[in-house]
Amino acid sequence: MIDRVAVLTGGGDAPGLNGVIRGVVRTAQNRYNAEVYGFMDGFKGLIENRYVKLDAQNTSGILHRGGTILGTSNRDNPFRFPAGRDAQGNLQFIDVSDQAIQNLEALGIQVLIVIGGDGSLHIAHEFAEKGVRVIGVPKTIDNDLEGTDQTFGFDTAVNTAMEAFDRLHTTAESHHRIMVVELMGRYAGWIALHAGIAGGADVILIPEIPYDVDCIIRKIRQRCAQGKHFSLVSVAEGATEKEGSMVVAAHIEDSTDPIRLGGVGQVVATKLSQATGLESRATVLGHLQRGGSPMAFDRILTTRLGVKAMIQAVEGPWDRMVALRCGEITVIPILDAISKTKNVDPQSEIVQAARAIGVCMGDDD
Amino acid sequence: MIDRVAVLTGGGDAPGLNGVIRGVVRTAQNRYNAEVYGFMDGFKGLIENRYVKLDAQNTSGILHRGGTILGTSNRDNPFRFPAGRDAQGNLQFIDVSDQAIQNLEALGIQVLIVIGGDGSLHIAHEFAEKGVRVIGVPKTIDNDLEGTDQTFGFDTAVNTAMEAFDRLHTTAESHHRIMVVELMGRYAGWIALHAGIAGGADVILIPEIPYDVDCIIRKIRQRCAQGKHFSLVSVAEGATEKEGSMVVAAHIEDSTDPIRLGGVGQVVATKLSQATGLESRATVLGHLQRGGSPMAFDRILTTRLGVKAMIQAVEGPWDRMVALRCGEITVIPILDAISKTKNVDPQSEIVQAARAIGVCMGDDD
Amino acid sequence: MIDRVAVLTGGGDAPGLNGVIRGVVRTAQNRYNAEVYGFMDGFKGLIENRYVKLDAQNTSGILHRGGTILGTSNRDNPFRFPAGRDAQGNLQFIDVSDQAIQNLEALGIQVLIVIGGDGSLHIAHEFAEKGVRVIGVPKTIDNDLEGTDQTFGFDTAVNTAMEAFDRLHTTAESHHRIMVVELMGRYAGWIALHAGIAGGADVILIPEIPYDVDCIIRKIRQRCAQGKHFSLVSVAEGATEKEGSMVVAAHIEDSTDPIRLGGVGQVVATKLSQATGLESRATVLGHLQRGGSPMAFDRILTTRLGVKAMIQAVEGPWDRMVALRCGEITVIPILDAISKTKNVDPQSEIVQAARAIGVCMGDDD
Amino acid sequence: MIDRVAVLTGGGDAPGLNGVIRGVVRTAQNRYNAEVYGFMDGFKGLIENRYVKLDAQNTSGILHRGGTILGTSNRDNPFRFPAGRDAQGNLQFIDVSDQAIQNLEALGIQVLIVIGGDGSLHIAHEFAEKGVRVIGVPKTIDNDLEGTDQTFGFDTAVNTAMEAFDRLHTTAESHHRIMVVELMGRYAGWIALHAGIAGGADVILIPEIPYDVDCIIRKIRQRCAQGKHFSLVSVAEGATEKEGSMVVAAHIEDSTDPIRLGGVGQVVATKLSQATGLESRATVLGHLQRGGSPMAFDRILTTRLGVKAMIQAVEGPWDRMVALRCGEITVIPILDAISKTKNVDPQSEIVQAARAIGVCMGDDD
Repeated sequence: MIDRVAVLTGGGDAPGLNGVIRGVVRTAQNRYNAEVYGFMDGFKGLIENRYVKLDAQNTSGILHRGGTILGTSNRDNPFRFPAGRDAQGNLQFIDVSDQAIQNLEALGIQVLIVIGGDGSLHIAHEFAEKGVRVIGVPKTIDNDLEGTDQTFGFDTAVNTAMEAFDRLHTTAESHHRIMVVELMGRYAGWIALHAGIAGGADVILIPEIPYDVDCIIRKIRQRCAQGKHFSLVSVAEGATEKEGSMVVAAHIEDSTDPIRLGGVGQVVATKLSQATGLESRATVLGHLQRGGSPMAFDRILTTRLGVKAMIQAVEGPWDRMVALRCGEITVIPILDAISKTKNVDPQSEIVQAARAIGVCMGDDD
Repeated sequence: MIDRVAVLTGGGDAPGLNGVIRGVVRTAQNRYNAEVYGFMDGFKGLIENRYVKLDAQNTSGILHRGGTILGTSNRDNPFRFPAGRDAQGNLQFIDVSDQAIQNLEALGIQVLIVIGGDGSLHIAHEFAEKGVRVIGVPKTIDNDLEGTDQTFGFDTAVNTAMEAFDRLHTTAESHHRIMVVELMGRYAGWIALHAGIAGGADVILIPEIPYDVDCIIRKIRQRCAQGKHFSLVSVAEGATEKEGSMVVAAHIEDSTDPIRLGGVGQVVATKLSQATGLESRATVLGHLQRGGSPMAFDRILTTRLGVKAMIQAVEGPWDRMVALRCGEITVIPILDAISKTKNVDPQSEIVQAARAIGVCMGDDD
Repeated sequence: MIDRVAVLTGGGDAPGLNGVIRGVVRTAQNRYNAEVYGFMDGFKGLIENRYVKLDAQNTSGILHRGGTILGTSNRDNPFRFPAGRDAQGNLQFIDVSDQAIQNLEALGIQVLIVIGGDGSLHIAHEFAEKGVRVIGVPKTIDNDLEGTDQTFGFDTAVNTAMEAFDRLHTTAESHHRIMVVELMGRYAGWIALHAGIAGGADVILIPEIPYDVDCIIRKIRQRCAQGKHFSLVSVAEGATEKEGSMVVAAHIEDSTDPIRLGGVGQVVATKLSQATGLESRATVLGHLQRGGSPMAFDRILTTRLGVKAMIQAVEGPWDRMVALRCGEITVIPILDAISKTKNVDPQSEIVQAARAIGVCMGDDD
Repeated sequence: MIDRVAVLTGGGDAPGLNGVIRGVVRTAQNRYNAEVYGFMDGFKGLIENRYVKLDAQNTSGILHRGGTILGTSNRDNPFRFPAGRDAQGNLQFIDVSDQAIQNLEALGIQVLIVIGGDGSLHIAHEFAEKGVRVIGVPKTIDNDLEGTDQTFGFDTAVNTAMEAFDRLHTTAESHHRIMVVELMGRYAGWIALHAGIAGGADVILIPEIPYDVDCIIRKIRQRCAQGKHFSLVSVAEGATEKEGSMVVAAHIEDSTDPIRLGGVGQVVATKLSQATGLESRATVLGHLQRGGSPMAFDRILTTRLGVKAMIQAVEGPWDRMVALRCGEITVIPILDAISKTKNVDPQSEIVQAARAIGVCMGDDD
């Protein structure tokens, strides 16, 4: 009989983390009379045995709040924990997973619920292989996780980015400018694609379709010929040029800072301005996409995921991830989810729809 | 070869109508070099031959706007058009569909795209039976149409309603009140269910689950016992009481005004206040749910529906409706969509999730 | 030396109450090393000696939240406290102000800061006359308090109401309807006037200018003649008809519920619909105006008021109210503020501006 | 008798430009039966004689829209118009003001209304000295114009910036980060100050108070000591360091791009991260502050300014600017407004209030 579980949130921020936590805690109380502990700051708190007991009181009024009441951390893999540097100055890593397991046992935790992205789910699976009962809840604002139709936080991020386009639209029009918005998405262009369509972008550049600057220039000149002396460009941070893409790509690989200076947005803006003679401006939304009160879709999705995670935690089997599949919450092996990135298919109906309404996807199609 | 189509918008307002129109027009121009005419004010404009030629210029900048640039009307069935009253004062109806078809022919319209709800799609199908090539685009803010997973405007309406809960939440808490929000949904409780979960409602009442006031009172008293002297109630306008529901139901049938005075929201608020001694307030959101700038989901969905409707208009077959099915835009016979209302299944996972987090659905489950 | 003060919030909710509390507490800590206690639920908590010690922790993250963390109540005058009913069933009142003063003394409170409207400030002044050191912070969402240029919460309420107009605008236009929005303001029309101008209303009806239905009808017909078959009407709940206003006025006096059923909004909508033949709809915003996260102006204003209230609490003199005067925070005797309601001057520049852009104010000017 | 005026919008974008235009046009029609022409793209359209006749139709539905329907341009001074380069490659300027005046006369324009910032108002005054009747309407999102209490667009920009803080707050808290937001304000810190207070910033850096990095570090460490391992920093783009400020200042002078790469925000973020060991992120809001639908305050203010500008255009005297003074719309000589920048006074009550609640203003006060 499962009556004590723990939950932690790992990796980057995404709107809706609190909704999952709340869903877990409320289901535990209402349905199983079970206790829920929360480890602080992701796996770091698990290693350091820092936790809080969660109840109706301290999870009240959190559904509409961004962030996570449990805190999170990015570099805290218990199987490869940073442990100082060696004589040559190289970072050393040690395996502290046994310490983590010991902490779970000492506290009587029977199941560990991990809310996190690809990295955190990998770690969860490694714990499962060592005999820990784990349940995963997928989290990535980029929406690029296989096994689930849509990740929470994505809808909120897309709406935030769309609002940016709405704001920039009138300025672009009044000043006859090219406005470039650089959005999250290093490997997959979901946010740039969706926000671009929703924001009425004329050009959308995503990692899945290497772009040709000449195509974009033709599109902008065509608009000018129609009397539209402004353009909106949506570009994913991981978008790369078709020809001579080395420079930009190299730049991206180098960067360790998500708010990269002189990223692809600025590169595109500069090239388009030089070629067309129109003024251009680049805006990097950065962390604004990770924050804010979650939209309705994300609040509902996280609630459902939290409920299902708790049910699965009690009823098993474990080493599973909850997922959204065609409108229904379902469960799949964690391993199936973390094997590969979900990319935008350039032949998909939504990309074809963008092309049909005249959006330039950076290529000649 | 199809190179001239017409589009019209019928029935009640929903955020996203303009997105469909824009999708149709842009696809016609970019892909088929076809012309698009728009009939004004729904079928009324078709009968009266009032139309405008749509182009890139007059459909520019409309994606983010609520309403419909073509206007709409509610009572304009060409097969049963109001034509004065007889000697006894009874409203008379005549069939003016031939006049409508004549107008289409005179203008050289080869396909008619109808954006509308159940009623408008019925009419579209009747025209199809008389030989007109029609394509339907489903519209109902209530989301209660079979054949499509989600209708456009619904996501925006749910977010609008959720914001109302967010606003009322703090007042409820500060004043120790029961706040009842009456939402759209005469026959199906989709908005009340989704907005209720997203807005953190403690009680959700929908037409599909007749409610028992005593259950609700128990829930509110239980909250008081836990130190929470306030409650949020989400109620669909079509929700009815289990016992003695006649009175309320009768009232609803009587009403011809969507902003009904003393509707179910007020009834519930009054009963709960009397039973618990807590102050209560009812708010009727009414038309606020139909307006506003569409959320990203609705802007993208309507763009895709518009694109697909135009493709289908050109390529056939006709008498079809475009639909969202498991994330993909597809096409189904109009007849399949209009045969029955899509209701909330009381046994569905989302309702179970609401119960799991402690939401009272008005019954004893 | 003042080093212990108390604060309470009385009367109806208004966005920004928490900002004042936070301003008081932070100033007390940073500047005076003083302690702040908060009485719960307005004067009721003072009478019942229910309080919480406020500090950096429990006032953290509240600036952006609506409502009041201290709770409030409406009927809790210590000088006239409800105390059951007599044999004839009439409500009896007793003076429990001495009990309140005793509670203050027992707790060592040297100054009481009262955040409240006209009623609460009256009570504060009465305590001052009994020797209690009090400071008032004016609160009324209606903005109708003499002595301060603008009350907090008003800017947020006006923006909320404006958004309602933005939402209804496109529906009105698409459906050729008259949309009437009933807004707060029983005695003064500030919200209806400001939101009406900001929301592009064609007609604005306020208590200060009794309206003539015929004038409004002329305005709406004039718009139809110009091809604008829709109109937006902003009406304060306290607006009354010039001729035959008895019925409506009587109705208002009768009502004890702010969300009045069949209030002036519905009355106006019905009359206009009957006269013009256009469909009409009334929306009552009600408590939505009192909630939500405060706008920037209100967050800044409340912070400044809270700081000034604490400074005044320490430095005196007391029996004073903090106020906004021409952009500066200042201090005036409480008595000066509560003597009369601040009304919209029909001859003021802002009303003249509304008339100049063609807004019908309900009269012939 | 004045019955034909023209209006143009010059300089950078600000939310509310359309509100002024609408106010002018409606007052002209309703009150004076006068005609209004709009020159396109600022003074450039005046020189090139590009204009549109404005009426109820083409100024309808623009109150809530950002940008300007007339377009604007930044470098178009008729008294110093760019006219190619000389043999040495230096830009040459010529005086084309006579051409502009000729265009006004040919069109029968009796008064020119200029909506613009310091630069545009200077030009307007120069035209006045050449005998043209001009009226100025002050516009600067930075709010740094003498002669008017608040410029339109400022309230909207502050709310936009505040929302950014709201979004970043929870991420900062969840990740234990320092979040730096760089806001507009090269010479005056109004936006950074107001948005910082409204957004709950812990540190606010403005041009008027050169900052000392050590003070900021002390503040952040003090917060860590209190268990708050995150901080929000609001920094105006023109903020400079007290010691060694040369580098940063030089950098700012160099830049011609408002979205400067590696601006002061990034500089501050990097220094604080290095000193405290906390992660930091910089966000540059840039043009997002200039766009979006205007807040209620800006819609009302622009309406009133437009009305007054038209009244003044007809009634004179001219060479005047309309202004907001203590809640009232008034009129002052243009020359009085353009003589000097309005800065934040470090001793003002609002700065003192920020200090009182514990905000670090970058110095030791």
